[in-house]
Amino acid sequence: RYGYFGKEALKEVKLLVCTIDGCLTTGHIYVSGDEKEILSYDVRDATGIRLLQKRGVEVRLISERDCSSKTLSAMKLGCAAEINVADKLLVVEKWRKEMGLCWKEVAYLGNEESDVECLKKAGMSAVPADGCPAAQKATGYICKCNGGRGAIREFAEHIFLLMEKVNSAGKKLC
Amino acid sequence: RYGYFGKEALKEVKLLVCTIDGCLTTGHIYVSGDEKEILSYDVRDATGIRLLQKRGVEVRLISERDCSSKTLSAMKLGCAAEINVADKLLVVEKWRKEMGLCWKEVAYLGNEESDVECLKKAGMSAVPADGCPAAQKATGYICKCNGGRGAIREFAEHIFLLMEKVNSAGKKLC
Amino acid sequence: RYGYFGKEALKEVKLLVCTIDGCLTTGHIYVSGDEKEILSYDVRDATGIRLLQKRGVEVRLISERDCSSKTLSAMKLGCAAEINVADKLLVVEKWRKEMGLCWKEVAYLGNEESDVECLKKAGMSAVPADGCPAAQKATGYICKCNGGRGAIREFAEHIFLLMEKVNSAGKKLC
Amino acid sequence: RYGYFGKEALKEVKLLVCTIDGCLTTGHIYVSGDEKEILSYDVRDATGIRLLQKRGVEVRLISERDCSSKTLSAMKLGCAAEINVADKLLVVEKWRKEMGLCWKEVAYLGNEESDVECLKKAGMSAVPADGCPAAQKATGYICKCNGGRGAIREFAEHIFLLMEKVNSAGKKLC
Repeated sequence: RYGYFGKEALKEVKLLVCTIDGCLTTGHIYVSGDEKEILSYDVRDATGIRLLQKRGVEVRLISERDCSSKTLSAMKLGCAAEINVADKLLVVEKWRKEMGLCWKEVAYLGNEESDVECLKKAGMSAVPADGCPAAQKATGYICKCNGGRGAIREFAEHIFLLMEKVNSAGKKLC
Repeated sequence: RYGYFGKEALKEVKLLVCTIDGCLTTGHIYVSGDEKEILSYDVRDATGIRLLQKRGVEVRLISERDCSSKTLSAMKLGCAAEINVADKLLVVEKWRKEMGLCWKEVAYLGNEESDVECLKKAGMSAVPADGCPAAQKATGYICKCNGGRGAIREFAEHIFLLMEKVNSAGKKLC
Repeated sequence: RYGYFGKEALKEVKLLVCTIDGCLTTGHIYVSGDEKEILSYDVRDATGIRLLQKRGVEVRLISERDCSSKTLSAMKLGCAAEINVADKLLVVEKWRKEMGLCWKEVAYLGNEESDVECLKKAGMSAVPADGCPAAQKATGYICKCNGGRGAIREFAEHIFLLMEKVNSAGKKLC
Repeated sequence: RYGYFGKEALKEVKLLVCTIDGCLTTGHIYVSGDEKEILSYDVRDATGIRLLQKRGVEVRLISERDCSSKTLSAMKLGCAAEINVADKLLVVEKWRKEMGLCWKEVAYLGNEESDVECLKKAGMSAVPADGCPAAQKATGYICKCNGGRGAIREFAEHIFLLMEKVNSAGKKLC
């Protein structure tokens, strides 16, 4: 169903899971007296998400924190999100099985110690330039961009490169 | 009509088109729970736009995104803007023809893949220091400043230098 | 009472006092016409505070400025805070005595001239990378991170390292 | 009246004039749909202003732009300000004469072309690290800090050093 091209089993990414604070956003929180928090993301990353969705990659967001769903919907990204997550691996496993995917088809972008297990399991993984040392150790790709400042876009371009390889490998076999 | 000064056809810039997200603004979007987004630009760039307008250069803004017209008017820049643009080249062509200009009289500042065609066509073009690689390849001038942090001002100074050359070339011919 | 492990009296940190402006926050204040100020802190630092609290370290905040208590409570850090403080040393002395601690059990993170005395007295102290020169002179540890951008998290990791040393020294003696 | 200490006429600074956008603030303007603009300054600079005022230096703010007086008063700096200024030199001249000062007693912090004349006239002058080239050429002191990120504090420390020299020179003559 997802196209095997030889023994190495190169696979297309079908799901990208992205941590909210510090990956989608900068992890900087702006607060004022009205108890409302302001987060910051980058148009480049929103564009990256849209490009992934166009190519059939589902993008989902995950957070340990109690992120405001109103704030997330204000970003108009069209991504499902799960917040207040105690164990990220558990949630990604649930998503993976629901979508009938193997781990090779899952990409993961995380920046924290709580992301380490998912970073190790995912077929492709990345950590922003300003991610924590434990996360950077657990991934094969450290972005040049910081979280909330282009890391998703950068990772998306890597995923597209892989997908081109998968497709050209497929064509060779035909 | 706009003064030819020899075979090389040095021409004054009559229109500067500038992408909104990532050129006029930083491309960073600040969101809070009230669905209202906050953008950031630089007083230096507003000054650059005012200087261009004083010297007779029309400045227009363009965006793929559904930028809030209220937010744009809050910047008090006095620039016409077209948002939700699917094909930027089409819009700039329309503007160029309406104003009776040739491409040599058009300057363009862009940072994204959607700006590449316009960057190539324009008589003068520039890309902010943090513009995407595809845009940087398509231009002759990469700014030292980032988008939303002085890139317009920097490009304006370049345009003024060209205009001085055009004028002094004109005087020599008289 | 808190476990002496030989003559050197290595002690666990029981209280971390942290200056608000420039340590917990960036020290950047965002103001608009409605007299409301916006401050910025980092999710990494909030995580650092939570980790400290889990390990039994009390975290308290201190400021010379009239910080808004509403803004502080919006950060949901669960820390006691004292603002409008003319003499920080006096307040930290009061806290130290109330908790029955010696200075070796107090850690202090500060960035300003008003923090110098506390930085010198505390058993462990640190200053963010962008702290003032006088504060940096008074401490043994200058963070790689700026204030409001990871300095607390970085200092917390140092405190955990010390606490591991204290514990392993304790085990050797048993 | 202000203490001459020999022919070189070392004088105490009695007035510091500071440009608002790009010196007191970063020059970054944050806008949202409600036409309200948000500016950003640094607690370090507010502290610098307070230290100057304590030592008897009057601090005044100046801007070409129509800065909101509500926003300025939200900063609680206790400084007189003049906005919408077409010719800064004219305003500073007026202030200087009202206070009965000579130019040697005036310090000036500016970042723009409109500040060049004042930078040249003032007894002491400085330009933030990110000030425009024309302003940097016109001053003897380029700050390490950017505008809105410590430049006033840095300049204040320089002024204090001068004032100490003036005072110690005065003592030698007694």
